[in-house]
Amino acid sequence: MIVIFRNIDEQDIDSMTKWLNKQGVSMQIFDNDGTIIGKLYGNIKAIDSRFLYEWKSVINVISTECNHALAGNSKGKRTVTVGNVTFGQEFVMIAGPCTIEQEQDLLTVARAVADSGAKVLRGGAYKPRTSPYSYQGLGSEGLAMLERAGKECGLMTVSEIPDAQLLSQFDHIDILQVGARNMQNYYLLKQLGKCNKPILLKRGLSSTVDEWLYSAEYIMSEGNCNVILCDRGIRMGDRCVVDIAQLYNSLEMTCLPIIVDPSHACGNSNLVLPLSRAVASLAIDGLMIEVNADCQKTLCDGVQSLSITQYQQLVTQVDTIRRVI
Amino acid sequence: MIVIFRNIDEQDIDSMTKWLNKQGVSMQIFDNDGTIIGKLYGNIKAIDSRFLYEWKSVINVISTECNHALAGNSKGKRTVTVGNVTFGQEFVMIAGPCTIEQEQDLLTVARAVADSGAKVLRGGAYKPRTSPYSYQGLGSEGLAMLERAGKECGLMTVSEIPDAQLLSQFDHIDILQVGARNMQNYYLLKQLGKCNKPILLKRGLSSTVDEWLYSAEYIMSEGNCNVILCDRGIRMGDRCVVDIAQLYNSLEMTCLPIIVDPSHACGNSNLVLPLSRAVASLAIDGLMIEVNADCQKTLCDGVQSLSITQYQQLVTQVDTIRRVI
Amino acid sequence: MIVIFRNIDEQDIDSMTKWLNKQGVSMQIFDNDGTIIGKLYGNIKAIDSRFLYEWKSVINVISTECNHALAGNSKGKRTVTVGNVTFGQEFVMIAGPCTIEQEQDLLTVARAVADSGAKVLRGGAYKPRTSPYSYQGLGSEGLAMLERAGKECGLMTVSEIPDAQLLSQFDHIDILQVGARNMQNYYLLKQLGKCNKPILLKRGLSSTVDEWLYSAEYIMSEGNCNVILCDRGIRMGDRCVVDIAQLYNSLEMTCLPIIVDPSHACGNSNLVLPLSRAVASLAIDGLMIEVNADCQKTLCDGVQSLSITQYQQLVTQVDTIRRVI
Amino acid sequence: MIVIFRNIDEQDIDSMTKWLNKQGVSMQIFDNDGTIIGKLYGNIKAIDSRFLYEWKSVINVISTECNHALAGNSKGKRTVTVGNVTFGQEFVMIAGPCTIEQEQDLLTVARAVADSGAKVLRGGAYKPRTSPYSYQGLGSEGLAMLERAGKECGLMTVSEIPDAQLLSQFDHIDILQVGARNMQNYYLLKQLGKCNKPILLKRGLSSTVDEWLYSAEYIMSEGNCNVILCDRGIRMGDRCVVDIAQLYNSLEMTCLPIIVDPSHACGNSNLVLPLSRAVASLAIDGLMIEVNADCQKTLCDGVQSLSITQYQQLVTQVDTIRRVI
Repeated sequence: MIVIFRNIDEQDIDSMTKWLNKQGVSMQIFDNDGTIIGKLYGNIKAIDSRFLYEWKSVINVISTECNHALAGNSKGKRTVTVGNVTFGQEFVMIAGPCTIEQEQDLLTVARAVADSGAKVLRGGAYKPRTSPYSYQGLGSEGLAMLERAGKECGLMTVSEIPDAQLLSQFDHIDILQVGARNMQNYYLLKQLGKCNKPILLKRGLSSTVDEWLYSAEYIMSEGNCNVILCDRGIRMGDRCVVDIAQLYNSLEMTCLPIIVDPSHACGNSNLVLPLSRAVASLAIDGLMIEVNADCQKTLCDGVQSLSITQYQQLVTQVDTIRRVI
Repeated sequence: MIVIFRNIDEQDIDSMTKWLNKQGVSMQIFDNDGTIIGKLYGNIKAIDSRFLYEWKSVINVISTECNHALAGNSKGKRTVTVGNVTFGQEFVMIAGPCTIEQEQDLLTVARAVADSGAKVLRGGAYKPRTSPYSYQGLGSEGLAMLERAGKECGLMTVSEIPDAQLLSQFDHIDILQVGARNMQNYYLLKQLGKCNKPILLKRGLSSTVDEWLYSAEYIMSEGNCNVILCDRGIRMGDRCVVDIAQLYNSLEMTCLPIIVDPSHACGNSNLVLPLSRAVASLAIDGLMIEVNADCQKTLCDGVQSLSITQYQQLVTQVDTIRRVI
Repeated sequence: MIVIFRNIDEQDIDSMTKWLNKQGVSMQIFDNDGTIIGKLYGNIKAIDSRFLYEWKSVINVISTECNHALAGNSKGKRTVTVGNVTFGQEFVMIAGPCTIEQEQDLLTVARAVADSGAKVLRGGAYKPRTSPYSYQGLGSEGLAMLERAGKECGLMTVSEIPDAQLLSQFDHIDILQVGARNMQNYYLLKQLGKCNKPILLKRGLSSTVDEWLYSAEYIMSEGNCNVILCDRGIRMGDRCVVDIAQLYNSLEMTCLPIIVDPSHACGNSNLVLPLSRAVASLAIDGLMIEVNADCQKTLCDGVQSLSITQYQQLVTQVDTIRRVI
Repeated sequence: MIVIFRNIDEQDIDSMTKWLNKQGVSMQIFDNDGTIIGKLYGNIKAIDSRFLYEWKSVINVISTECNHALAGNSKGKRTVTVGNVTFGQEFVMIAGPCTIEQEQDLLTVARAVADSGAKVLRGGAYKPRTSPYSYQGLGSEGLAMLERAGKECGLMTVSEIPDAQLLSQFDHIDILQVGARNMQNYYLLKQLGKCNKPILLKRGLSSTVDEWLYSAEYIMSEGNCNVILCDRGIRMGDRCVVDIAQLYNSLEMTCLPIIVDPSHACGNSNLVLPLSRAVASLAIDGLMIEVNADCQKTLCDGVQSLSITQYQQLVTQVDTIRRVI
């Protein structure tokens, strides 16, 4: 950590030095032709850098330490393998209904997306809904349907887990999803860090990339390094936006695979296809797409779901884009 | 629910009517001199209004139903009483350290804020920190300190609960706080709705007022109507902003008391005083202020904490403002 | 215009009717099973719809009139032809330096981008800079250089005009650019609406699509319908974001060609290529790219400029994407 | 300017040094126990600091130079005197209709606000409207009415000037207003910097404080230092927000007086009073309030205008707040 000063006097240096020492940190000062620079040593983690600005002569504090020891990119890319799928090595399509409602419909979708090359079946059993009066999902019954459909069609499965107390219900689900609203539910993250399943970590609605990687770090620092990141856009006024440039940067900032969920990012089925094409032109690791057997009948989020035919078009177009890049 | 059409033909009306009927909803159409208006009856809750825009002739859908049955303002203001304090009836000052660290310091702050008229002592025992490597709090030991300090100084107590599994540890804490990051942790909200303690519900970092009230609705619909709302600003780029006009509107939209946390809203002790003055000029129900015995020594968020002396100035200024409005 | 009421009484209807009548508007009321709907006739343009909410029984006001009479999409797509280029018919590459500095460098870039298929040469002579102390451009001398380089390489030319008083200096420039900061400089827009040159209208940094089209409407309503829209991202915190989904929607909302300027949208040369690929996967009408002969020597915005080699890579990749969509 | 490096090698230092030298800048390197710091001397203004990040070993660049030579706060507060009013010394109320429509109404408002202690009469003659089809104002005829009303009631006058070509029409107006949409119309700012009238500079809808002060700097660097800043909120999604904490900071960052326009900041008359109270609790230099003789009849922005009675209430409440702070 480095501190840049303007117009500092001896008294200021003394008072800051004493304060730092109390916290196990020492400061070496050097004057470079009028600009005073302080370098800090010791228990740097104890220092909240914003504090140093309390001394009016401080004009800048620069952290020279790396923040994301495990989720950062310092040691190259990681892969996450689940069954016959390896995120970070192949481009993975995850598809399925927003919410599991009827076993027959789920099977219809599962067969269709498996035929189109999807490797993972998604489906919500516990649905986080803004209103307590909205449909909340089938719970454990839905998870059982998802497991059966996955087995029947040779697909891995992913479903959102809203609380660690429900972990045992997810025994036969392959990937556990942390929803955007729970991205900073650190208690849940730590519990998931102690299990041995891959975690799909969605980005929070207004989270920075830094915060997102820290949430991955919560899981990884408990021992579970099988984390897949999923960008679903961030809130901008009354809509969500996938920031292409920031997504591109994120790919360079982390060792973890990153996939994109265009269905929730745009909230409208008409936009899922163009947005999928656009993000597929970057080197992302996969897509997660909502597909329903009967979009207009569905009880939850149907407005952004694709029909099976639309999904097949999407796969074709995304494949074409990916082949040329 | 009302639907406004432009240039609709018989075929469109037919297809929409069939779709609605499948979901238990009927539509009555009337043509008012060229503008076609449809009114929906029946199982309206089943309809995702965004879906109706799939028919290109639909130009607007208006919900005429009330959304927040319990947290809304249709039946006048509620009060929340805990011990000798009644939120919604008196202006309540909540004060105390961000994080509980040393019992002696906590007591020093508790005595000082009690002397200045605070009614509730705050203190974090389980701290939600962006990084897993940051100080995470004393846990149950901290809660015990908080309880003792509250008793000794005649103050009610409030502390953040990060997960419902920890509920038994909070037996002797008077008010349970739901943090901003957990505002949409619906599993936690439902569990808290089943306990009989007042809940302090912070607004999420990018939540709309509508979503905030729905989160209150999650608690209230489980039977616990003792909810106090706490605005702590919303994220705008790299800072947080308390939107004065929206806060003023919120006061009219809900039956619940609303307090403001200026310490987290501005993240800098220099700004806590002016921001407190500004919000106190509205008819809010209280303030929650971070106060530390030794701001610069604290391990967490000290940069936004006031010293005891600064807190006393704040109380004086806020009182003066409140007396004249 | 349609008004939806809740719990209205005769007195309210009377008072609103009187107020409307004063402004030349009449209201026909019909009660549809408890929901009261008012339809307005007459001089609707005189009514600020927000006003109607002053009557507490009003829950919604819907405009059924079309707002962008000229820039909207009601009559299909328009093309804008300048010399041998037709925007809206072919995909147009505009390229060149941010700022014109040295004639030799400009010529080098012009030849290279012409060889790579660009049709229009860009170059700033009057530069809008945040600070008055930053380099402000060569002015009329720069315009003369641009004209000569365009002629020599068979390229059309485009440059930003900051004020209508400078119009005569742009006599030999083919396309006049309105910068993002001037998007709502209505006095300038009206003057440009009276000239007979194509106008490249950049989107303002925080403008809605609605406001952007209204600015086009200012130009078109004065008689000049040769407007090309240019999206350059909108501000989100401390960075700019091209909202892919909104851009896709914009293409359907207007009759005008839309191109994208990824250089200013991302402000960093590393991001120009991935962002160009992403937007090229939509049906946009062209790209405007900053290219410098010597990026690191340039006095203005060089950090986001591509080298000639990078530009050639971009053209190849964008062509590949465009061929498959 | 100071540059902090990580893992730099000799080759990197060489290449950066050469590049800097080309632009008249030299760099002195010193190694402080592994952290390499470079200090730049010479023609610093030529360097775009973002460029230095192109060298991958650069982790931070810090500007140690002051940016706003004239509008900054290095030399203490300035006052701006016009007639018998001194901004920056007394709290100044500016009031009047959004748009000048009828002389009689203007006079009614002018007399009322003068009686309530206002010192400056506002009124729009050239109105910047989002749509070209909205009412655009009375132009020079409106300015003449404003002049007469000001004289009759002993009030100074302020009105928005949309373009420098209209300057002669404003000969008898005391203060020239630059609208939010024109805040970065640098051509206009420079022309106003050459005239000798006070300028009221509104903050742009999404401008940073830094950009706002640079726009003041454009006026001041041409010789006119009589600039009054006016905050009118910044855009956040579909509404405007006055950021109290940032406003408080702005007051410390500039030597110029800052007033607030709550009418445009909240866009609704119900919110003008609470917002005025809130900002009056800070040490701002005045308020600008829209007041209409007949709010519901007005052709432009009436929805946010106060009636004369509401204005008088506002003055009383603001005075009360100001007396106690």
